[in-house]
Amino acid sequence: MEAFSDGVFAIAITLLVLEIGVPADAADDLLGALIDQWPSYLSYLVSFSTIGAVWFVHTVITGHLDRATSIFLRLNLLLLMLVSFLPFPTRLLAEYVQEADAERVATTVYGFNLFLISGLLSVLWRYAIREHLVRPDSTDADLATLTKRLTPGLAGYLVMIALGLFLPVLAVLGYLLIAVYIIVPFAALRRPTSST
Amino acid sequence: MEAFSDGVFAIAITLLVLEIGVPADAADDLLGALIDQWPSYLSYLVSFSTIGAVWFVHTVITGHLDRATSIFLRLNLLLLMLVSFLPFPTRLLAEYVQEADAERVATTVYGFNLFLISGLLSVLWRYAIREHLVRPDSTDADLATLTKRLTPGLAGYLVMIALGLFLPVLAVLGYLLIAVYIIVPFAALRRPTSST
Amino acid sequence: MEAFSDGVFAIAITLLVLEIGVPADAADDLLGALIDQWPSYLSYLVSFSTIGAVWFVHTVITGHLDRATSIFLRLNLLLLMLVSFLPFPTRLLAEYVQEADAERVATTVYGFNLFLISGLLSVLWRYAIREHLVRPDSTDADLATLTKRLTPGLAGYLVMIALGLFLPVLAVLGYLLIAVYIIVPFAALRRPTSST
Amino acid sequence: MEAFSDGVFAIAITLLVLEIGVPADAADDLLGALIDQWPSYLSYLVSFSTIGAVWFVHTVITGHLDRATSIFLRLNLLLLMLVSFLPFPTRLLAEYVQEADAERVATTVYGFNLFLISGLLSVLWRYAIREHLVRPDSTDADLATLTKRLTPGLAGYLVMIALGLFLPVLAVLGYLLIAVYIIVPFAALRRPTSST
Repeated sequence: MEAFSDGVFAIAITLLVLEIGVPADAADDLLGALIDQWPSYLSYLVSFSTIGAVWFVHTVITGHLDRATSIFLRLNLLLLMLVSFLPFPTRLLAEYVQEADAERVATTVYGFNLFLISGLLSVLWRYAIREHLVRPDSTDADLATLTKRLTPGLAGYLVMIALGLFLPVLAVLGYLLIAVYIIVPFAALRRPTSST
Repeated sequence: MEAFSDGVFAIAITLLVLEIGVPADAADDLLGALIDQWPSYLSYLVSFSTIGAVWFVHTVITGHLDRATSIFLRLNLLLLMLVSFLPFPTRLLAEYVQEADAERVATTVYGFNLFLISGLLSVLWRYAIREHLVRPDSTDADLATLTKRLTPGLAGYLVMIALGLFLPVLAVLGYLLIAVYIIVPFAALRRPTSST
Repeated sequence: MEAFSDGVFAIAITLLVLEIGVPADAADDLLGALIDQWPSYLSYLVSFSTIGAVWFVHTVITGHLDRATSIFLRLNLLLLMLVSFLPFPTRLLAEYVQEADAERVATTVYGFNLFLISGLLSVLWRYAIREHLVRPDSTDADLATLTKRLTPGLAGYLVMIALGLFLPVLAVLGYLLIAVYIIVPFAALRRPTSST
Repeated sequence: MEAFSDGVFAIAITLLVLEIGVPADAADDLLGALIDQWPSYLSYLVSFSTIGAVWFVHTVITGHLDRATSIFLRLNLLLLMLVSFLPFPTRLLAEYVQEADAERVATTVYGFNLFLISGLLSVLWRYAIREHLVRPDSTDADLATLTKRLTPGLAGYLVMIALGLFLPVLAVLGYLLIAVYIIVPFAALRRPTSST
């Protein structure tokens, strides 16, 4: 399961660059044309950081895992489907940011995708704990640390989706912050024995 | 063989999202434009679930495997070719659902691809059993469970291909059901000793 | 090295499907439009089989390998570059088969790419033997079997490239035959101890 | 971490071929049309060599690694983001080489991406040494060899970026040379004990 999951994360994160189009017929002012498509770079940055963060958490979860039930495997497949889908709203965002009403639709669809990914990650983790799928040597403190970290993200996405209805670009920056918040202090979450 | 096969499954499943086009020039009514392309999302869902199910069964098969002959490896390569091909009929389906006659052609081509994948998976499995490639500690009951599960899928695809000539969208939903039928009750198929 | 190489093979082989375009505006006669693009399916089949065959041989080579020098690693990287490049001539072939003069250019470029891949595979293998990188328990007979199998392919590509100047489609079928010739009788080449 | 990183490198390097477009409507003079798009092949060659070189160095670094801190993992994720981004400037270069002013913009953006990748690779390596993340059996001479090799590349990129403002194509050839310089004499950098 881990090789397949890692593969899907790695591919989804690397495919994101295909969403960035090269400006056509911009030989006169290529620099200007490149600067004009900042929404593409922003979308790339946010989606890359988010998939990176989700992969990170996923690694922590499977690192704690002792065994997997078939329900866990199906939930995991559902998570991979939502992650694999992300390049689509990413392109949507890159295309329609700065375009009046469409901007709000694109931001909301994008945020909703992130919210679902984050929610399913939480479900996966809570399911693993409830069904005692984690290794016996994982302490309760270890497990609580990850649980505590996942919850604010979920609430954060909801707040940002609401904010996005009024200030779309700010919401996108908020999505970036959530991803960074998850990635940055992850030292304490990794099982000490796994060196990589 | 498993790393290569897992890689191909992971890539094929993640490439599917590239088939979903972002609506162009839809700034006036992006939400409407997004809803209008529901065939794209449906195709994505069905193909993702199917490749997920096939990967699942493939994992169960290789989990039982003790050794591989060169015929097994070639059959496996043929299976990977059919799975890698699926993004093409998926795009076809997304493009031509809801388009009079073309809809039936697209659904039939799509269904035929699924039928071939499913058939080859059965052939692979039956070949492995007949040539005694499975581990000695796999019980006959274990093996029979997988065999029994693969057969209805094959028949189901035939029924759905026929149905698709009259009610294409219903056939597509049928393809989804077959994939879910294969994924959902898989607990009993996994070898107890393999924890992931 | 093997994980990276296997990854590149798996991605290159799965990307091939992106070369097959969905016929646009063909709602009136989708079946006819699909049949008309048989060069796309043929190119897909030949390239898939060839990359499959090359991956197969590569697996056999690394299976015999005891250690790798830096020259081996660089030759391997060069091989991966040629394999990764193949989707481009594949698309070229799909686009220009059946188009008078262009057909011959496309077939020759394609065949030349295959010839280079095949040549580098031979170089890699001969280098490994000459530098004694193979495992001591590989018998001379084992090694000779692979060497003997690689050589006719090289000559075959040269003959087919020449033939392609007059009968392009026949040459493409010849490329398919060479790939099948390499894949089919591979049982004898695998080291007996490695079960997969 | 290594499976995920290797996956991202393998995908980014294999996606590069998608940047090479097949000439449209060139049935009259396909050979001429193919020769005309030499900037695409050059960009492909330089980017492939560079990602190959970076993967190579990355393998050497993780081969020396004894353990990873969370800062190392985040730096690594940043490196992967820059590598995954490279197909975009590659396409930019392929599109705008030979186009007056735009050529200089494209070459500079491209060179800057390479410089950042190279810089982050150095940071990753220096961080690993400073934090004593390398294996105790790696000698100081081993470590110094890699450090010495990475530094000229960094300076080389700066020189080439400046040169590119005047002679863009020459700068691109310079980028190729830097990649080759890193790949070619790598024998001495690999840990003797790791055979692959």
